[in-house]
Amino acid sequence: MERDIIKLFMRHLKKQGDLPLGDDAGAIKVGGEWLVATNDMLVRRTDVPDIMTPEQVGFKAVTMNVSDVAAMGAKPIGFLFSLGVPEDMESGYLEGVAEGIGRALEFYDVPVLSADTNEADDLIIDGIALGRTRRLLTRSGARPGELVCVTGDIGRALAGLLVWKNGLEVPAKVRGALYEKLLEPRARVEEGSKLSEVASAAIDISDGLSKELHLLSEMSGVGIEVEAERLPIREEVLEVAEITGMKPVDIALASGEEFEIVFTIPEDTLETLEIECTPIGRTFKGGGTYVTTKGKRQRMPLMGWEHLNRGVKEKNWAFLR
Amino acid sequence: MERDIIKLFMRHLKKQGDLPLGDDAGAIKVGGEWLVATNDMLVRRTDVPDIMTPEQVGFKAVTMNVSDVAAMGAKPIGFLFSLGVPEDMESGYLEGVAEGIGRALEFYDVPVLSADTNEADDLIIDGIALGRTRRLLTRSGARPGELVCVTGDIGRALAGLLVWKNGLEVPAKVRGALYEKLLEPRARVEEGSKLSEVASAAIDISDGLSKELHLLSEMSGVGIEVEAERLPIREEVLEVAEITGMKPVDIALASGEEFEIVFTIPEDTLETLEIECTPIGRTFKGGGTYVTTKGKRQRMPLMGWEHLNRGVKEKNWAFLR
Repeated sequence: MERDIIKLFMRHLKKQGDLPLGDDAGAIKVGGEWLVATNDMLVRRTDVPDIMTPEQVGFKAVTMNVSDVAAMGAKPIGFLFSLGVPEDMESGYLEGVAEGIGRALEFYDVPVLSADTNEADDLIIDGIALGRTRRLLTRSGARPGELVCVTGDIGRALAGLLVWKNGLEVPAKVRGALYEKLLEPRARVEEGSKLSEVASAAIDISDGLSKELHLLSEMSGVGIEVEAERLPIREEVLEVAEITGMKPVDIALASGEEFEIVFTIPEDTLETLEIECTPIGRTFKGGGTYVTTKGKRQRMPLMGWEHLNRGVKEKNWAFLR
Repeated sequence: MERDIIKLFMRHLKKQGDLPLGDDAGAIKVGGEWLVATNDMLVRRTDVPDIMTPEQVGFKAVTMNVSDVAAMGAKPIGFLFSLGVPEDMESGYLEGVAEGIGRALEFYDVPVLSADTNEADDLIIDGIALGRTRRLLTRSGARPGELVCVTGDIGRALAGLLVWKNGLEVPAKVRGALYEKLLEPRARVEEGSKLSEVASAAIDISDGLSKELHLLSEMSGVGIEVEAERLPIREEVLEVAEITGMKPVDIALASGEEFEIVFTIPEDTLETLEIECTPIGRTFKGGGTYVTTKGKRQRMPLMGWEHLNRGVKEKNWAFLR
């Protein structure tokens, strides 16, 4: 549905910014710099697992927006939000959300600029983040022959979701590591700022590495090939893969809301890059997104978090198995 | 309820921008200028009269945000929005909303920077406007001995609502003039930019002139006195006052979502001001908000659109009669 609605609106929204719609955030030139702006709405019924505390909900509403700004290479400079609040909402829950938003603003060192509340049928937090940067990172800047890298590790959000939804029995330490990423993800703000000077393209992982790589490939007009063995997958994810009989690489490629940054850089700049990251593949002249496992190259399946998440809600895991 | 929620959040939102929360919009200094940002959520069930077309709904979602930016003296430079869309929403309605947003962006000459859609229980449009200005107009800058002025005319929005809700019989021309303001209000963008150079304080009329004057008085720490006879009330509003037996001045003071700008300026700058406006009163040293009718000075009652609108929904007009 979402895609149809976006198409419908695109027909009518002819006035766009200095960067056309289609990136993590919008951008306009202000003075000699780029002003970056993004918004992302969180709806309790569809976006919030019931093990999430209200503090975590509030924190995440900030993280998901700050992450989009960071993926454009920008430093976040302001946050705004609109609340939709049901009449019968317990004030303790709201207090928790407020605390979570407040703590996130401290964590990311971003001031709140404006807030609005309304009555609505479900709890809704529409967050908006603003950022600024001298050099903008887009999804369309990758060139052939570059390295594809990712920050942090990937797969824990989905592995945690699997543990929770299927009631998998795993050691407390494993569960802790997975839930940390599922419930308390953090945006890569410092990494985004540093990447703005050297990367050729970037995107944050909100819909899953697979979907983000497909977008990078299409929007940059290059082919992308990643090696399954190089994906930074933690031990805890391997444990869940073993229990469920799933392939670790599938969990890593499908896992969304990781808020890691995937980016491309010329190979010779990797050494001087001051952030922790893992090179996972390369871009090449042409098109298509591929994954190589034990030397065997295959088209990478498009596994999106959007559909996956719907699958989770309907307890329908068919396509993943 | 809204006030309690805001209070609750204020306790947790310690990191604020260069201008504390409490104005029409938030603001931060970027380079030598002010970047102004505001957001306002429109919920179909509570905010949209059923005679409003989807095009008018979309246009208004832009207007209400652009108006807040204009009231800060800023030129709007970008618009963002998040949609909440019910699963069973007719696509024709959505198409209309998209068209309305698109036409408003052309009208105000503002680019869209980012858009997001989500499933929700009711149609929700959360709009965000960004603006920039060298000099910021706030609600707290009025000084004693200044003129209080307002752009355009006031009262038509409420008079239109009265006609619609009570099925009042008025000539088509009268209805047309009232519905124009009720359904298709326009933000005072050019006026806001020009006022930024000379006004001492400003606010846009979203909750009614009475409420805005009370806010200006409290936040600036001055008294305000307006003369009922000077309020720019059009003939069509007088007709509705006559039919309903209400006082025209009450309609003018309570009418919200007018999106006119109320501002204060030193008396000697009025002559050089290049916008059309009406001086309606004065500020004085002290406090309190007063209205003088036929030489008789009274405390101005606080009549807010928020409560009024609720009254409208409940068809409870007691407090107005």
